[in-house]
Formats: sequence, structure tokens, C-alpha cells
Amino acid sequence: ARFGDLGYDHATIRKIAADAGVDAALVHHFYGTKEELFAAAMRLPVNPGQVLAAALAPGARDEGQSLGEHLLGTVLGVWEVAEIRATFLGLLRSAPTSEQAVVMLREFLAGAILGPLAQAAREAAPGAGGQDAGYRAALVASQVLGLGLTRYVLEVEPLAQASSADLIAAIAPNLDRYLSGDLS
Amino acid sequence: ARFGDLGYDHATIRKIAADAGVDAALVHHFYGTKEELFAAAMRLPVNPGQVLAAALAPGARDEGQSLGEHLLGTVLGVWEVAEIRATFLGLLRSAPTSEQAVVMLREFLAGAILGPLAQAAREAAPGAGGQDAGYRAALVASQVLGLGLTRYVLEVEPLAQASSADLIAAIAPNLDRYLSGDLS
Repeated sequence: ARFGDLGYDHATIRKIAADAGVDAALVHHFYGTKEELFAAAMRLPVNPGQVLAAALAPGARDEGQSLGEHLLGTVLGVWEVAEIRATFLGLLRSAPTSEQAVVMLREFLAGAILGPLAQAAREAAPGAGGQDAGYRAALVASQVLGLGLTRYVLEVEPLAQASSADLIAAIAPNLDRYLSGDLS
Repeated sequence: ARFGDLGYDHATIRKIAADAGVDAALVHHFYGTKEELFAAAMRLPVNPGQVLAAALAPGARDEGQSLGEHLLGTVLGVWEVAEIRATFLGLLRSAPTSEQAVVMLREFLAGAILGPLAQAAREAAPGAGGQDAGYRAALVASQVLGLGLTRYVLEVEPLAQASSADLIAAIAPNLDRYLSGDLS
């Protein structure tokens, strides 16, 4: 309720603990960070920020695998799990219908998803400036969320039936270009 | 109402005319094709299929402009018009909330948008087979709709503030790859 009322940024663990009539330390003890509490409140079976951070960690990739390939493979693997996909669709569905949900999802994206992506872009293209990395991260998000929208919500064929391997072959090079290519 | 009840494919002009108590010829006379009637029913100030067809027509492009650049420039130009953007957002919003709206939007996409895109892909990459062209068109749709979602619904920065020229430089080469590049 607090996340919905105040948005992700303004819903502090302190306020949420006060609502529940407990000490903030107790909430921290059981739920960890605000990001983890949000994942629990959304009933996400995984913490998207954690999955993403693990996928982007140095050494997480196989030999010869590009960052875009590994990233898209991770996202598609997570989406293959039915209850995770249902939650993702729920988030995507709630976003366009209320301004509050939009704010919440935008702030969560900015904090938990775009930040690590921008950091990965910075490491992949060390010459690029800070703002550029945020632009690169947002472009990656536009393609990945667009794939989720067309494949799972609109079920556009043949995207809905395409294998993960085919999608990675088709889309990952475009993600790699967003992450480290020349965009000018 | 008929489009909502039956979906785009099954809502015939004959049935819609019967609902209105008039002859189908009268509906054809005033509204033209079913696609045009749908655009009128959705109160679209333009017919997206017509705009797309014009954008994809041979000779529509400037010298040295790629198909992806022209396509994305057209879409961004259309979205710049406030009432068109509002209608686009309305469609995007209604899609995830009801299965009926999903079916309607999917069929409309398949009929009016993906068909011409696939045809353009066929012409851009003449060696590719028929199924491949549909796949290319769907990939283009995933990126363009994802851009609409992140730029206009979620207002992810710096995508929301980026100029059309910057977005075209960043995204059009990826669209060109979907339309005519090696996706294997």
C-alpha cells in the first residue's frame, strides 16, 4: 500500500514499519533492503535487481558469449518460469493504467535495473561518458521490454513461438550495439 | 462495440452495418475499408496502416536515408502530435488489461502493420523466405513498441527527453539489421 501511495522512492522502510506498528530494524531483519522488500511486496519469486546484478557480474559469462547474449538469455530464462512471467505481466499491465503505478515502476526501473545496466555499459564502452551510459541502458530496456510486450502480452507471431536461441541470435547483437556500439 | 465483442477479424462491416440498421454499402461508402472503419471507431486522426504504407512506398525515402531511419522518423513524427500520441497510449493501455483488447490489437497489428512491414523486409532482403520476413517485421515491432512504452508510458530518461534525431541515430541501424541483416 505504501509503495502504491508514495511511489518507490518515497516509501521508506521506516514508514512501512510504522504502518505495520513494528520497528524498522525488524523489517530490515526479515526483508533486507528496500529493493528486497519491494520484491516481496510484489510477490516476485526472484529479485530482478539481484538476478540482473548476477548476470552482469564479471566472470558470469561463458567464453565467447557477448554481454547482450548473456543478458537476453538471463531475461528469457527468467520469463520462462510461469509465475515469474505472470508477475512481469502484472507489472507491465498495471503500469499504463495508473499514474501512481507508472511512477512506482519507473523509479524501480531506474533504481534496480537501469543503474546496473548503465554500469555494465560503462564497463563495456569505457570511453563513453556517464550520461551516455544511462542512454545506452534505457535503449536496452526499450528493446527488452518491447520484446516482453510483443512476445507475452500481444503474443505477436512468430515472436511468441520463437525459441530463446533464435531470439538471442536475432536480438542480442542489437543489445550489444546499444551497450557498446557507436550510436551517433 | 462489435470490434470489442468479436475482435478485429470477426467484426465484419456487414455485422456492423446490421447493428446500425443500415446497408453494408452505406458503411463502405462513408468509411471505406474495415481498416479505415476501425481507425474511425478508435477515433484515430490518421490511419496507421496508410501512414505506414506511405512511409514504406518506393521513392518515399530521401537520398541516402535507410529504411529503418525513414520508418522510425515517420513513427516519431506521428507520435509528436499530441492527440495521436494519446490514442496510441490508449491502445497500448487497453491491450494488457483485457484479453479481448489484446486479441483486437494483435489482429490489427497483424493485418495493418506487420503485413506491410514484412513486405518491406521482403523487398529489403530479397533472398529471405516468407516466414523470415514475418519474423523481421515482428522484431521491428518489438523495438518500436518498446520505444513507445519506455518513452511515452514509463517516461524513462533520457529516452523521454531525447530528440528524434538522436533516437534515429541510435535505433534505426538496429531496425535496418532486423529488416535486412543476418539474424542467424
